Amino acid sequence: MIDWIYVFDLCGTSVFALSGALAAGRHKMDPFGVIVLASVTAIGGGSIRDAIIGATPVFWIQDPNYIIVILATVLMSFIYFSKPKRVGRYSLPVADALGLALFTIIGADKALSLELSGMVAVVMGLITGVGGGIIRDLLCQQVPMVLRTEIYATASIIGGICYTVSLTLGAPDLFALLFAMAIALVIRLAAIRWHLSLPSFDLKTH
Amino acid sequence: MIDWIYVFDLCGTSVFALSGALAAGRHKMDPFGVIVLASVTAIGGGSIRDAIIGATPVFWIQDPNYIIVILATVLMSFIYFSKPKRVGRYSLPVADALGLALFTIIGADKALSLELSGMVAVVMGLITGVGGGIIRDLLCQQVPMVLRTEIYATASIIGGICYTVSLTLGAPDLFALLFAMAIALVIRLAAIRWHLSLPSFDLKTH
Amino acid sequence: MIDWIYVFDLCGTSVFALSGALAAGRHKMDPFGVIVLASVTAIGGGSIRDAIIGATPVFWIQDPNYIIVILATVLMSFIYFSKPKRVGRYSLPVADALGLALFTIIGADKALSLELSGMVAVVMGLITGVGGGIIRDLLCQQVPMVLRTEIYATASIIGGICYTVSLTLGAPDLFALLFAMAIALVIRLAAIRWHLSLPSFDLKTH
Repeated sequence: MIDWIYVFDLCGTSVFALSGALAAGRHKMDPFGVIVLASVTAIGGGSIRDAIIGATPVFWIQDPNYIIVILATVLMSFIYFSKPKRVGRYSLPVADALGLALFTIIGADKALSLELSGMVAVVMGLITGVGGGIIRDLLCQQVPMVLRTEIYATASIIGGICYTVSLTLGAPDLFALLFAMAIALVIRLAAIRWHLSLPSFDLKTH
Repeated sequence: MIDWIYVFDLCGTSVFALSGALAAGRHKMDPFGVIVLASVTAIGGGSIRDAIIGATPVFWIQDPNYIIVILATVLMSFIYFSKPKRVGRYSLPVADALGLALFTIIGADKALSLELSGMVAVVMGLITGVGGGIIRDLLCQQVPMVLRTEIYATASIIGGICYTVSLTLGAPDLFALLFAMAIALVIRLAAIRWHLSLPSFDLKTH
Repeated sequence: MIDWIYVFDLCGTSVFALSGALAAGRHKMDPFGVIVLASVTAIGGGSIRDAIIGATPVFWIQDPNYIIVILATVLMSFIYFSKPKRVGRYSLPVADALGLALFTIIGADKALSLELSGMVAVVMGLITGVGGGIIRDLLCQQVPMVLRTEIYATASIIGGICYTVSLTLGAPDLFALLFAMAIALVIRLAAIRWHLSLPSFDLKTH
């Protein structure tokens, strides 16, 4: 029996590492700087989650596969982009969207497996999903995606709720996983493609 | 017997959530983005404190009241500001000052209740008091209040010292709590009102 | 027998506190703000390391010497810079380089002493070495040094590898310590002095 959560976790690690490498490339960082940015993007959210849950040492310390996946992803980016090649401006947001959807479910699942409540599971999904990207954007002095008007935190929260509710209703694990992931991903990709946004909360200051 | 520390902790959570919501409104974030910013502001400092003390899972994971208070505060902000209404430019700093004073004492109290030294208690008060606001300002790409010239960290450090010293001298808990909170709050509000600042440390670079 | 790791740890704490105080002076912060910035720079990286390893309460909570060293360093900066005196523009990067070299080895050593793998030790050295400086630069709204083109993360990673490999090959502790520290420091200082950089990873976006 394949541990799908683990497989998707490594996939999420890879796409977030890629999003970090793309962001690093836009800032013309050197190879070791790229590794640092790819790593904090890929394992930052999960590390915050584990540190505040108390699941320490955090996940990637015990299992070398996470760092290996990051290094392999960065290496492949170097090879792929070694010839002059332009990067579509949607590459980074799309890699980020995939990571967001995958890590939301991974984070919610970890909370549920520790017998935490459904509400905490949704929050842990959110932290895992948006944490790494926020660190990446802060380090690159970009406005974090979660702060821009396009639907972002919304996709993660809805994905986390779908996962938690599906499992509570007795859906099979793999179904809940794929369903919730698809919902979060579709919402976020649609928001990127058509610049969808919810009505914003707009305050004017004297 | 009322647990005043807990009551003030929830009050601090609410005012910091409000300060996060106000900051989010200035950045025209969508409703879920507002929830995210209000949450990290309200529980960020305490989460850092608990993670470095090792009091994990951190406080809000075990007690759903914190998240409920945040959601209720955000909801009330939406309702209150749903009609066009200008926000005074002091609203955010004043909400932040209240949270600073409340959370400084909460943080120092948590350290003391874990038998940590008075010096560590002052530092934990500072981390709890300024942590959430720093994260809020970093995410909003504002210069963190703690870095501006007006008295800020000073108010928290003096409040923490007053609390620790009062308890050491045998003052009743509630007295120490109210006294130290009032000191920190008055110092910070006076600094906002009259733009008070200490002499700054000013280096010139070749 | 002197515990050299501890001696170098306190030295690293002092030079990073100095780098934080210098950064604070450039931003004309007040004395308590200077203390806050010096502290997060000096103990930020190690605190992140301990929180994710699960070595809580983190190091400086149990041992007051760290905070005392920070306060003494800040006090000496105030005295030294109380007369008008210009600060060379290399002061901050050089203090930062010393801290980077020292803390890389401290972090790697802590991981090895907890029986973690060599790869994790290198990562922990990196987190300890660059963590505090990243927080300092984020708070000051500077591009973090680790993101600029000059060799930075590279120096830490090579230093961490040298330390881990030396110990694995059976080198005496003090030799491995001094050797790896010297390598990291020389690489970083050379990069500052001659503006050395590795070829950068450069992506163009449509």
